[in-house]
Amino acid sequence: MNLNHFKELIDFELEEFNKSLAGKRPESLYAPICYTLDLGGKRMRPLLTLIACDLFDGALSEAVKPAMGIEIFHNFTLLHDDIMDKAPLRRNQPTVHKKWNADIAILSGDTMFVQSFQYVMQAPAGVLKEVLDVFTKAAIEVCEGQQMDMDFETAPNVSIPHYIKMIGLKTSVLLAACMKIGAIIGGARPEDANHLYEFGKNLGIAFQLHDDILDVFGNSHKVGKQTGGDIVSNKKTYLLLKAMDMADRYKKEELMMWLHASESNAAEKVEAVKAIYEYLGVKALAETEMMKFYDKSLLHLNQIPCNPDKKQQLINFAANLMQRES
Amino acid sequence: MNLNHFKELIDFELEEFNKSLAGKRPESLYAPICYTLDLGGKRMRPLLTLIACDLFDGALSEAVKPAMGIEIFHNFTLLHDDIMDKAPLRRNQPTVHKKWNADIAILSGDTMFVQSFQYVMQAPAGVLKEVLDVFTKAAIEVCEGQQMDMDFETAPNVSIPHYIKMIGLKTSVLLAACMKIGAIIGGARPEDANHLYEFGKNLGIAFQLHDDILDVFGNSHKVGKQTGGDIVSNKKTYLLLKAMDMADRYKKEELMMWLHASESNAAEKVEAVKAIYEYLGVKALAETEMMKFYDKSLLHLNQIPCNPDKKQQLINFAANLMQRES
Repeated sequence: MNLNHFKELIDFELEEFNKSLAGKRPESLYAPICYTLDLGGKRMRPLLTLIACDLFDGALSEAVKPAMGIEIFHNFTLLHDDIMDKAPLRRNQPTVHKKWNADIAILSGDTMFVQSFQYVMQAPAGVLKEVLDVFTKAAIEVCEGQQMDMDFETAPNVSIPHYIKMIGLKTSVLLAACMKIGAIIGGARPEDANHLYEFGKNLGIAFQLHDDILDVFGNSHKVGKQTGGDIVSNKKTYLLLKAMDMADRYKKEELMMWLHASESNAAEKVEAVKAIYEYLGVKALAETEMMKFYDKSLLHLNQIPCNPDKKQQLINFAANLMQRES
Repeated sequence: MNLNHFKELIDFELEEFNKSLAGKRPESLYAPICYTLDLGGKRMRPLLTLIACDLFDGALSEAVKPAMGIEIFHNFTLLHDDIMDKAPLRRNQPTVHKKWNADIAILSGDTMFVQSFQYVMQAPAGVLKEVLDVFTKAAIEVCEGQQMDMDFETAPNVSIPHYIKMIGLKTSVLLAACMKIGAIIGGARPEDANHLYEFGKNLGIAFQLHDDILDVFGNSHKVGKQTGGDIVSNKKTYLLLKAMDMADRYKKEELMMWLHASESNAAEKVEAVKAIYEYLGVKALAETEMMKFYDKSLLHLNQIPCNPDKKQQLINFAANLMQRES
């Protein structure tokens, strides 16, 4: 399992894709697609697809196009989410709906969506239907998760199990689908493909909880953006929901006061809410929750009989995700 | 070829689909999907898919799910187009982005897009890849057509060949894909499936030109909406582009004056532009163009060796489309 080689395969596909779009018309449709994919990213999803395929000694050449399809799909969801979230920046660059407009962002997103299917469809014929079933199920669930996330903005009460369900759909099922698709193409037995799905799903939830923690407690220099964005926007993350659960009447009132404070005191608000989080110890509780899902993911991975060296490398990959600072 | 039976099959699928969504959560995601499909429509695309399959004595049960997938896809495009066109009404009912909001319209549209794939994916395994290739190619082209249409709004010069290319992509390729997919599932030889594709493509262009004519010269009672909408919105249809081509300097100035007139004189503007169209004879020219594509479609249909009764019924179906008043 040579991760650098896997990355090269993905970068090659990305380059080929971008080349195939160069000069394509209508330009107003295709330029935003190239722009979006050029913004970069960790390419974690296609990487996990190749890792899963390799875990069962499958042929990477059969997995690389579907892996690429999932990366295009992921970028499509970011593009449409940015319209809905009115996000001005993505990876420090203007979002498509800001650089062009919302109509172009909708339509170039739709086009990327079709392109993602065209790549996933290149899975070997013998497993095509199975791969497409996993992919489309995940795609629907990602939409459900995004809708839940939007509904939460105005919902008076969001429970923690509900929040976990939302991040499970919005973030984790796609990671789970990556792993399962890689496993299927790699020739895994159905039970092993399912264990890898559960590994990806639980790891994804742990990953998102880690993200919530980093947004508040991360080193802004390492995270690459100002920390506290979730606090400023009153985002109902695990930390906020847990704090509301834990707080006594007085702390709850203090927290509510900050939630309703005007945005002009952003830095002050971040510091104040962070202090409440620290007082209530919600960081440690979030880390415990994160480790619970992380451990669960490893339990599933351990059920799979495969090359122990490759398995260890995947464990290392997962551990790195949990220890990352950005 | 029993068209009523075909319609029943499609209506049954639509009902089953709607039932499967009832009560599904998040409700804010699924309610707009049921609403959109409940708005009705001619269901022309799935009907053409079944007709094409039957033309080669194929099993309708194998074509009905892909046919349904194309209908869902078509409705998805209407949903997203309505956001981009800021349309308040669709079939006399509020559009999804008006009844709910634009974010919900984007996301429930995305979900319908995945659902359309899930239906098309139910094509028989032996032709699955081929069917998906035709479907995804058409889906991309529909996006290209919509982008061209949006680009035309601000383009200073749009040529008639360019306009024909746009409606070919935006409207016709999906009709063409319906027919080709039906033919493939029905077991047609590749050359016959391609002839049916060309039949659908040319018929679709004729159909859209007919729509352009109806919008201006139709009986508003029969069309079911106020005629002249294209004139009011300065839409660059075949009629307007041809009028610009045909007009002498003075008529062109008159036309330009109306194009820049304020919307408060909508009825007056419609009458005036219609009078210019009549003076220049562009209605007859549009009809000639329409018949050119209609005749071309029939040439392709005639190349296909199949049951003459069924072929005649398809010819009748196409002739009805050309003579429709709404």
